[in-house]
Amino acid sequence: MSQQKFSASAPSTHVSFSSRGKQLIGQEMFRVLDRAQALERQGHRIYHLELGNPRMAPPAQILEAAIAELHAKHVGYAPMAGLQELRAALSDRYTSLSGKPIAASNVVISPANMLIHQFLDITCNPGDRVVLFTPAFPSYWAAAAHLQLEVVPVALPARDGFLLSRPAIDAAFAAKPKAIIVNSANNPTGAVYDPAILHELVARCGQAGIWLLSDETYADLTFNGSHVSLAAPQLGHVVVMSSFSKVLSVPGFRTGYALAHEAVVAKLALSNSTLYSCLPGFTQVGCLAGLSVLDAYAAEVRARNRRLIATCHDRITHAGLLQCHRPDAAFYLFVDIARTGLDDMTFCRRLLEEEHTAATPGRSFGDAYASYIRLALCGQEEDVLEGVSRTIAFAEKLGGCHVQAA
Amino acid sequence: MSQQKFSASAPSTHVSFSSRGKQLIGQEMFRVLDRAQALERQGHRIYHLELGNPRMAPPAQILEAAIAELHAKHVGYAPMAGLQELRAALSDRYTSLSGKPIAASNVVISPANMLIHQFLDITCNPGDRVVLFTPAFPSYWAAAAHLQLEVVPVALPARDGFLLSRPAIDAAFAAKPKAIIVNSANNPTGAVYDPAILHELVARCGQAGIWLLSDETYADLTFNGSHVSLAAPQLGHVVVMSSFSKVLSVPGFRTGYALAHEAVVAKLALSNSTLYSCLPGFTQVGCLAGLSVLDAYAAEVRARNRRLIATCHDRITHAGLLQCHRPDAAFYLFVDIARTGLDDMTFCRRLLEEEHTAATPGRSFGDAYASYIRLALCGQEEDVLEGVSRTIAFAEKLGGCHVQAA
Repeated sequence: MSQQKFSASAPSTHVSFSSRGKQLIGQEMFRVLDRAQALERQGHRIYHLELGNPRMAPPAQILEAAIAELHAKHVGYAPMAGLQELRAALSDRYTSLSGKPIAASNVVISPANMLIHQFLDITCNPGDRVVLFTPAFPSYWAAAAHLQLEVVPVALPARDGFLLSRPAIDAAFAAKPKAIIVNSANNPTGAVYDPAILHELVARCGQAGIWLLSDETYADLTFNGSHVSLAAPQLGHVVVMSSFSKVLSVPGFRTGYALAHEAVVAKLALSNSTLYSCLPGFTQVGCLAGLSVLDAYAAEVRARNRRLIATCHDRITHAGLLQCHRPDAAFYLFVDIARTGLDDMTFCRRLLEEEHTAATPGRSFGDAYASYIRLALCGQEEDVLEGVSRTIAFAEKLGGCHVQAA
Repeated sequence: MSQQKFSASAPSTHVSFSSRGKQLIGQEMFRVLDRAQALERQGHRIYHLELGNPRMAPPAQILEAAIAELHAKHVGYAPMAGLQELRAALSDRYTSLSGKPIAASNVVISPANMLIHQFLDITCNPGDRVVLFTPAFPSYWAAAAHLQLEVVPVALPARDGFLLSRPAIDAAFAAKPKAIIVNSANNPTGAVYDPAILHELVARCGQAGIWLLSDETYADLTFNGSHVSLAAPQLGHVVVMSSFSKVLSVPGFRTGYALAHEAVVAKLALSNSTLYSCLPGFTQVGCLAGLSVLDAYAAEVRARNRRLIATCHDRITHAGLLQCHRPDAAFYLFVDIARTGLDDMTFCRRLLEEEHTAATPGRSFGDAYASYIRLALCGQEEDVLEGVSRTIAFAEKLGGCHVQAA
């Protein structure tokens, strides 16, 4: 994808990288971003559909609160588990959402991507199996590879709307994993799972002694406004994580959180301290201000996403050559490009170089998805529409060639 | 130290933490901070000498640049290796400092504490040996423990001013380590090593195929204004790291960097992407603005530290019961409390609870240092002086009891 080489070989014959060092795969969309930004530095206008990088203005309160902290020169260290006030506010929010008592000591602040890694790190030993319901977010794969875990992918078929089902859960347990990751609302499919099935998964994990990570990063962006949270700190095996990045349009704040049993929260706080000491305080103060307007802001984001997703979905499917399931949440389209005759890597590389439109190759979400690409529709509306138009036009050009060649 | 329990036991009998999860030890001074902040919430005034948390106002340029980015709503994702402009500016700075050509592709941005972990992660396998010259910064121990490495401590004796010596290097190589970490100017001792000895260490590591991490976080705070950097990207085995936290008084920005061979930088960028995607962009823009005034600002910080360290050192040593070597850099005093009759943990716990003065126990820097405490003298001047006075008074009270009891 990228022109930049990420060599696995060490810089000299005298030293070598570790096994874990060789297992670093990163996230493909950040390589796409790097290449796209290199083209931008050459003066090209790029349509960014590669990253879930919301370009809606965040709530003014977040920026104002962070700016006030900087004006006050509050730039010292913060507590390793996160700002007490933010932990308390999140415990209130999730007590309301889940109907279960959740204390501040059940909350730890950390970047959401980091929490995926931290969860797998504190629960799984090298060689342990972890189940991903696929297609699955690239960071799960990257973290599992780096930690030398065996990923058991359990595919959720497109024909079933990419939904979690009882047979999928059966398949997950048949693999005898140490941990399972579930992600509803889902990235990249936008599928929202049945709450009854999710709660069945929680219960069965508890019985079998399997750790469960519920990634609820997009739960607040479910189009119908429902938010199903599996937060249940009294159940020691369930860790819920989420992020402020998507729902408050502040990915650059790099702030997320987890809700779990106190013993797990204490362990994650120690992991924070070991890995990176603490997060900035002023971004956390910003997120705290954002929490107070989250519901109203999220409603706006949902309405905007729902409309834009519908428009783009219709255009793509009406064009005929590309196929995709219609999401119930978030801002992604997971598009089947099989009929274009190109694989995902070639499609994305050429789409970027020829049409200046950046998308993420499907195999980032699992090897089985080399005939898919993911489009992130969270940028400026005109840019999104232009990027989608270019993607369709590019596909049709290919389709034409493909049919001619056949 | 802390009232908070960091239990190694899992939250239920059905699930268990991983081996790595059980090896998380964190950083003791963050537990001290947590307890100190709990006392503050009860209304107590606390004198903070536990963390290297500079309280001098940072350069106005940093805050203004970060605030301007927030006003411009630049809160999206940034490149995984760091902002290109910041990497380029650092390559210029270190080309000047080292006299060697250093390109932007030899620079990667990441929090300094994280870089310690990332360096050990990409270079060492579980069970590999890593040499620390002790006393050594707690994060080295925490990262090594978490990654299941065997730490071989090589003590630099107090009677030699805690300086790196040829016999210490011989002892390091005798251990046949995979990696060595060297830290000059040193935390906690403030010792600044002989450049000739440092360059000998670089050369011998190259010959023996041993990775070398040179932590230069305090190099710009050497009192005589010299800055010895081992940055040499053409040598594949040397990784230099540093931080903006101490020299620009912005620990809350959580921004540091490493200088290394391109292949190592590429690996560290992948590690960034895998662990946490990227850092905030606006803090990096702030640090870029800070770089342009770093030399003038650092000179002010050095002058202030030198004066305050001299005052506090004199007071402590004149009191007679406490001993400490006089630092040549940074803002720490590593104080021998043996004659008080208390070990470091008890001393620090009682100093906090009885005198409301927070300090870091010596064993955080190695098991051999249970008769030391570290005082960080980078807070508000009056607070530092009051904290030091309370520490001396507390020690004298103990000394009195100790003598009486003896």
